Amino acid sequence: MEFQLPFKIQGIETINQKLLQTFPYKGERQLIQYTTREFSAVCPFSGLPDIATVIIEYIPVKLCLELKSLKYYFTSFRNVGIYQEAVTDRIFKDIYRVLKPKYLSIRTIYNTRGGIDAVCIIKRGKPE
Amino acid sequence: MEFQLPFKIQGIETINQKLLQTFPYKGERQLIQYTTREFSAVCPFSGLPDIATVIIEYIPVKLCLELKSLKYYFTSFRNVGIYQEAVTDRIFKDIYRVLKPKYLSIRTIYNTRGGIDAVCIIKRGKPE
Amino acid sequence: MEFQLPFKIQGIETINQKLLQTFPYKGERQLIQYTTREFSAVCPFSGLPDIATVIIEYIPVKLCLELKSLKYYFTSFRNVGIYQEAVTDRIFKDIYRVLKPKYLSIRTIYNTRGGIDAVCIIKRGKPE
Amino acid sequence: MEFQLPFKIQGIETINQKLLQTFPYKGERQLIQYTTREFSAVCPFSGLPDIATVIIEYIPVKLCLELKSLKYYFTSFRNVGIYQEAVTDRIFKDIYRVLKPKYLSIRTIYNTRGGIDAVCIIKRGKPE
Amino acid sequence: MEFQLPFKIQGIETINQKLLQTFPYKGERQLIQYTTREFSAVCPFSGLPDIATVIIEYIPVKLCLELKSLKYYFTSFRNVGIYQEAVTDRIFKDIYRVLKPKYLSIRTIYNTRGGIDAVCIIKRGKPE
Amino acid sequence: MEFQLPFKIQGIETINQKLLQTFPYKGERQLIQYTTREFSAVCPFSGLPDIATVIIEYIPVKLCLELKSLKYYFTSFRNVGIYQEAVTDRIFKDIYRVLKPKYLSIRTIYNTRGGIDAVCIIKRGKPE
Amino acid sequence: MEFQLPFKIQGIETINQKLLQTFPYKGERQLIQYTTREFSAVCPFSGLPDIATVIIEYIPVKLCLELKSLKYYFTSFRNVGIYQEAVTDRIFKDIYRVLKPKYLSIRTIYNTRGGIDAVCIIKRGKPE
Amino acid sequence: MEFQLPFKIQGIETINQKLLQTFPYKGERQLIQYTTREFSAVCPFSGLPDIATVIIEYIPVKLCLELKSLKYYFTSFRNVGIYQEAVTDRIFKDIYRVLKPKYLSIRTIYNTRGGIDAVCIIKRGKPE
Amino acid sequence: MEFQLPFKIQGIETINQKLLQTFPYKGERQLIQYTTREFSAVCPFSGLPDIATVIIEYIPVKLCLELKSLKYYFTSFRNVGIYQEAVTDRIFKDIYRVLKPKYLSIRTIYNTRGGIDAVCIIKRGKPE
Amino acid sequence: MEFQLPFKIQGIETINQKLLQTFPYKGERQLIQYTTREFSAVCPFSGLPDIATVIIEYIPVKLCLELKSLKYYFTSFRNVGIYQEAVTDRIFKDIYRVLKPKYLSIRTIYNTRGGIDAVCIIKRGKPE
Repeated sequence: MEFQLPFKIQGIETINQKLLQTFPYKGERQLIQYTTREFSAVCPFSGLPDIATVIIEYIPVKLCLELKSLKYYFTSFRNVGIYQEAVTDRIFKDIYRVLKPKYLSIRTIYNTRGGIDAVCIIKRGKPE
Repeated sequence: MEFQLPFKIQGIETINQKLLQTFPYKGERQLIQYTTREFSAVCPFSGLPDIATVIIEYIPVKLCLELKSLKYYFTSFRNVGIYQEAVTDRIFKDIYRVLKPKYLSIRTIYNTRGGIDAVCIIKRGKPE
Repeated sequence: MEFQLPFKIQGIETINQKLLQTFPYKGERQLIQYTTREFSAVCPFSGLPDIATVIIEYIPVKLCLELKSLKYYFTSFRNVGIYQEAVTDRIFKDIYRVLKPKYLSIRTIYNTRGGIDAVCIIKRGKPE
Repeated sequence: MEFQLPFKIQGIETINQKLLQTFPYKGERQLIQYTTREFSAVCPFSGLPDIATVIIEYIPVKLCLELKSLKYYFTSFRNVGIYQEAVTDRIFKDIYRVLKPKYLSIRTIYNTRGGIDAVCIIKRGKPE
Repeated sequence: MEFQLPFKIQGIETINQKLLQTFPYKGERQLIQYTTREFSAVCPFSGLPDIATVIIEYIPVKLCLELKSLKYYFTSFRNVGIYQEAVTDRIFKDIYRVLKPKYLSIRTIYNTRGGIDAVCIIKRGKPE
Repeated sequence: MEFQLPFKIQGIETINQKLLQTFPYKGERQLIQYTTREFSAVCPFSGLPDIATVIIEYIPVKLCLELKSLKYYFTSFRNVGIYQEAVTDRIFKDIYRVLKPKYLSIRTIYNTRGGIDAVCIIKRGKPE
Repeated sequence: MEFQLPFKIQGIETINQKLLQTFPYKGERQLIQYTTREFSAVCPFSGLPDIATVIIEYIPVKLCLELKSLKYYFTSFRNVGIYQEAVTDRIFKDIYRVLKPKYLSIRTIYNTRGGIDAVCIIKRGKPE
Repeated sequence: MEFQLPFKIQGIETINQKLLQTFPYKGERQLIQYTTREFSAVCPFSGLPDIATVIIEYIPVKLCLELKSLKYYFTSFRNVGIYQEAVTDRIFKDIYRVLKPKYLSIRTIYNTRGGIDAVCIIKRGKPE
Repeated sequence: MEFQLPFKIQGIETINQKLLQTFPYKGERQLIQYTTREFSAVCPFSGLPDIATVIIEYIPVKLCLELKSLKYYFTSFRNVGIYQEAVTDRIFKDIYRVLKPKYLSIRTIYNTRGGIDAVCIIKRGKPE
Repeated sequence: MEFQLPFKIQGIETINQKLLQTFPYKGERQLIQYTTREFSAVCPFSGLPDIATVIIEYIPVKLCLELKSLKYYFTSFRNVGIYQEAVTDRIFKDIYRVLKPKYLSIRTIYNTRGGIDAVCIIKRGKPE
């Protein structure tokens, strides 16, 4: 069976960190956590889709992530061919750059593939 | 915030029922169920992705669905703008046409949007 | 303690059935269920907010409810002073009028008030 | 579909910290926790309602919060357009100012929006 | 130990069916259920308090129960000395008289006393 | 609707610490816990009943609480108008005075009112 | 090891049906259920205690069981040497005689002995 | 209602620690736990039976408890009028005297009486 | 009733530690756990069978237990009359002797007998 | 019954560590976990298949495991006769050699055989 992907696999240049928008925060020291069970990218070999849970945790200094912009940013991964380990590292770096937070942690939990479950975690700073 | 979708919303002509492949079955009356938690299409208005669970149940007469081809078929919805109710109907019709089963049921369960959960069910024939 | 409601209690004329939009459906007989845990109206006496779960189930003939429009319709109850039993009846009537479905059921489940839980159910037709 | 909000989005000046009433407390060191699953404000962009769980924990010095007044205070957010992070900070500051407690913690847990769950936490002092 | 009840055991004439208020209902056939886990009366011998769950289910003809008035009605049992079986019968009769519903069911479930759990059920008509 | 409470709201002088009886204990260091889900007092404003769970934990020195007398003591709160925070403090003080225990903790957990749950905790000494 | 029972095994003449007291009932047709997890009698051979759950269900004609008297009646089995099957039959006969109900069912569920669980049921009439 | 107990309430001299038999143990340091949900004694006032769960934990030095003799020992409490706190202390002392263990803990958990649950714990030594 | 055991109760000399076989291990420090819910021996008095869960945990030095031989070893207890405490100690000693591990723990959990549950634990060394 | 294995038991030389492929990683310190419930090898005596869960956890230095190659590597165990303890050690060594990670842990959890469950764990380094 010859399978034609109904869309083109995009390169990582499609991931658009400029979509990440922020708004100013001048309040108390605050611990913030965002969780989505709907992150999706594609396998760099086959172009078949992967689905993952992504958990972001941070303590802002001067800026908070705008949630709708985060959704748009995640959407820019949708047809990109990329490994899970690189996804975790890329999200970490992009969010770190725009927020410059006191603390940041990224966890990615991919759905079962070939009977294997995979989890990746990157942290900087401390939640307390 | 001006948001550029990083991919084009595709029309329903992208949904490719020819991807659905079958193999012959001559055995006993058999009830078969396939479940995926990873079906994805996009909202016809915004192009933002939706994620759903799809449950297929059928009793074959002469043909069974080839599972890898079902995955490819689902993948052809990935960037298509389409309502959940139309998705349920389309999957039902496409599978009914290739299998001509004694019994077929399609259930789609979309992830929460705007605080609303939606479930759609189409059945023909009886499971027992 | 003299309490000034920070908004005006609106009358039932604010409930806007015109917000309910539909799209044509010509597919198979389909059972559709929408659930929200976020319905809100206000107590007709005190103007204090009530929160409820609303469950809508129907079998379309020629029309389906557009989900975003359903959310807007629910939003039009937000500051209206109205009893739960009247809410259930009103949602039933408004949706019945725009959809003319084969089957319709509305269930409202209000959060505990004064230590009492209340559930209301209206049905017409049969789900199977 | 042109959607007219059936109410006006209010500014943050509507949030009424004067509603927060207290009563004197001269008893033992006491840890107090209030939880509501019914907090509601609106999205600052769309005016569509958000629902959240809010958890308040404190150790009083000379004053306790009067619960009905807390409910009125929460009600004053009902039609205000405000981010979750600002909600958490505002509730913290308003309650801190009226109670001057030994310990205060505010947690807000918003319902899923766009497939993303968000939690915010602010604390001052220690519960033990 | 000589125990003086800190209140007087009241007779069943204290139970005040006039507190039960109704409002007109002209809508669809509707099944309504009210549940409280906070019903309380006292043992006719000892005057010690009993706590019960009460579940009311009815289909209105022209009238609905006003919930706050139901709470007041329940409150009128608070210091009355009365058996559980008589409570069930009395609530049934009082509500039947004011509502004249198509269907009515009363269930009382008392907390354990002397290691014995007791449940009482009275029904008239059918829920469907 | 004019509501006449079917009983008088009593003042806190009705709470009868003399009901608390003890019996001598000369045994090993022992940790004792009593839990009731049936504590009841009334709202100081409306006179409407509140229901709570009360958890008492102590290590006796020379005296234990007699359980039936504890039930009588709780019963003396039944028609008293009093805040939850004051209830917790009062029970703590009354029991501390009669027992003079090595360790005492009082927790009160009120049923939901106006969509808000409240928990109060007072401790002195250590359970181990 | 020679074991002296610290009490005498009593004969079935100790079971005291006169303890069962009733009060008049003139209300609606009512289904009543009593459950205790604390029934106890002794093994007719060894005199060692057995513990059981007993469930009584009945529809009264003119009389209801007084619950405290039921507890006393159960207590009269406490040191009696008797088989589970005879217990079920005896409770059925005694209660039937004093109540003359429309419907009566007795279920006894003994705790595990020698790795065996035993349940006995006697019914007369119909619950609906 | 005049109630004659069908057995005599026995004094604490009936509790027969001589029933507790042991067998020699020369093995490894061992943590042993026995649990019964069938302990029974009677209320010192009313003679009405109480049921409890008893949990014994110990580390033997030279002796283990013989389990059947423990059952006989428990049986000797059956008709004795005694408080829960005294039961816990008595079981602790009797078992400590015959075993002289490295570690011993006794927990008694009585069934609900008058809506109150009670738990008592005595320990000596450490389980590890 | 005269009961003839259909087999002879065997003495502890029947327990056959020679059945325990090992195989050499030269790998990394490894924590190993075996669990069976099917261990069986007989009561030393009555010869009636007992069933238990046995959990073995160890860190090997040079040898691992061969699992089939462990099953044969357990089988050699089947008709042996022996106390649970002695079972735990015997299994510990036999396995310790053949494995000489860095760490060993044996837990036995017998099924309920006479309403009593019993658990025994022996450990030497540390799992980490 | 004479059973002919339908395949030959292979020796451990069949396990093919060269199948393990890696890709370079230069990102943040990252904790990665892979879980499969589908590992299979055969009993070295009978050649009958065993199924296990394998959990791999590591912190990469310069290399990550390619997931599809891991699946192929696991597949090379399929007809190999090998003990669980040797499997755990072999997977540990092979992965350690190709990755040279900061931290590595291997857990194998075999399905019940002969009524016995077995778990093996090897770790080097620390996850935090």
